[in-house]
Amino acid sequence: MSVLVSGSIAIDNVKTQKASEENLLGGSASYAAIAASFFSPAHIVGVVGHDFPQEHLDLLKSREINLEGIEVSEGETFRWSGEYMEDMNERETLEVALNVLESWKPSVAESQKGAKINLLANAHPINQHDVIDQVLEGPGFTIADTMDLWIQISRDELERLLHRIDLLVLNDSEAKLMMDTSNIVAAGKQLREMGPKYVIVKKGEHGAMLFAENDFFMCPAFPLDDVFDPTGAGDSFIGGFAGYLASLGQQEYSFDNLTSAIARGTILASFTCESFSTHALQALTEEKFEERLQQFRDYCDFS
Amino acid sequence: MSVLVSGSIAIDNVKTQKASEENLLGGSASYAAIAASFFSPAHIVGVVGHDFPQEHLDLLKSREINLEGIEVSEGETFRWSGEYMEDMNERETLEVALNVLESWKPSVAESQKGAKINLLANAHPINQHDVIDQVLEGPGFTIADTMDLWIQISRDELERLLHRIDLLVLNDSEAKLMMDTSNIVAAGKQLREMGPKYVIVKKGEHGAMLFAENDFFMCPAFPLDDVFDPTGAGDSFIGGFAGYLASLGQQEYSFDNLTSAIARGTILASFTCESFSTHALQALTEEKFEERLQQFRDYCDFS
Repeated sequence: MSVLVSGSIAIDNVKTQKASEENLLGGSASYAAIAASFFSPAHIVGVVGHDFPQEHLDLLKSREINLEGIEVSEGETFRWSGEYMEDMNERETLEVALNVLESWKPSVAESQKGAKINLLANAHPINQHDVIDQVLEGPGFTIADTMDLWIQISRDELERLLHRIDLLVLNDSEAKLMMDTSNIVAAGKQLREMGPKYVIVKKGEHGAMLFAENDFFMCPAFPLDDVFDPTGAGDSFIGGFAGYLASLGQQEYSFDNLTSAIARGTILASFTCESFSTHALQALTEEKFEERLQQFRDYCDFS
Repeated sequence: MSVLVSGSIAIDNVKTQKASEENLLGGSASYAAIAASFFSPAHIVGVVGHDFPQEHLDLLKSREINLEGIEVSEGETFRWSGEYMEDMNERETLEVALNVLESWKPSVAESQKGAKINLLANAHPINQHDVIDQVLEGPGFTIADTMDLWIQISRDELERLLHRIDLLVLNDSEAKLMMDTSNIVAAGKQLREMGPKYVIVKKGEHGAMLFAENDFFMCPAFPLDDVFDPTGAGDSFIGGFAGYLASLGQQEYSFDNLTSAIARGTILASFTCESFSTHALQALTEEKFEERLQQFRDYCDFS
């Protein structure tokens, strides 16, 4: 079983207090697809410009990701430049240029329509609706990520989306913003009542919470005493989540399966934080992954 | 086995956006001793003034807490007034009057010196040293809580204290302040290197982390979608932790025992958040406690 990942594909310039690098592979779909491909075949739907580095496409190919849904447009690729402060929770966006993303109409390739999990990585809700329209009757499980910007400027489309997906994933600050409450647990519960069967609230270094009708799960983040670059950690988390879920090869998505998938996504996100871009994800071996997963289990264990 | 709890005993006036109440039992030692007494016999060392309500003393007595270490002084009891904002993480101190606490010299009663766990609840480090001086050779395990104020104005005494205790407990913001880092994991590790065998970093609604030389444990907080009054949650946490540890009746404090104790402290803290003062702790039955602990286990479980 495979995962269809749609969303942004970007060229990032990232600066931290220790290092900086330009022309990095970025974007929600890039991180999510590479993370998903650690567990399952992945397909990507997005848009890039004429300036998009071939090496980035080669990387996606090397992960055996189906690229037929990538449109290569005449304009320039979506670009994001940001700087992290000494406190890695504080980030300043230095520059954003939507470029080809602005007029993008996602187009899912025929070869991609068999995917059983539809991961709508962070993108404009209208783009997310577009993808659902093209794969109706297809995927067995639809996940949507979102962000503060869409909550603010595209709330109607986002609310409409909530009735078309199985799982909504968003940050704690975004959940609180959307539900106008300062309590994360209340926000998660209220969001679930707006349509999706499940809601995941991501809390960054504090882990994640999963809300279901009669069930609840919470798990910490993997502890890192040196975060190198957290860009894309949330996208890697949900990509890993979706990829692991697909790898289980079931049409039924049980709550227990979702909790297992959250643990796996958490581990992938921790690796993403240890390098620029998707470098650590690319270098990740099954052995290193399993070792950290076991460590994570030990760290969370009490009797 | 029993727990010796020293620290502040206060009269609190608390205001939230929903309710307010005056002349509540407050103070680090009050919460911690009542929480500890849920699992084990407890002794309390502190000071109150002539104005201290008899009902508060009666409550402590009803928990079979040994009060011989409470000095009743001529002045007025330590008072704290605070207000919680709509976001319960934001608290404004409206008034603090140290009163009898200012010149307090803790005096551990002879009948209290057999306690095996010495919990130095939040108080001036000099008071904490005083207690250790009086029970030298006594307790098998010494725990100290602290706060930002002592880090700022009494750092030398605090650093000296770190060599005399087994476990330091403090908030994440305090750990970061003390180690001058924005990374909680790094702060915890560095604090451990300053003396104590163990460090617990409390993260409020995000749970807690335990640092040991070659071991690590983390656990979320119990999820509450309606926090009524979080005053004393951290004190209840560490009081419950110490009480549970004492109840195990072992002189050896294994890492696994500490993680079990953290889970129990977490549950008691969650109850404290559901009422003013120690009201919910007082009303807590073993059945309600066990039910929530099982729920907590389920919430944290993944495969």
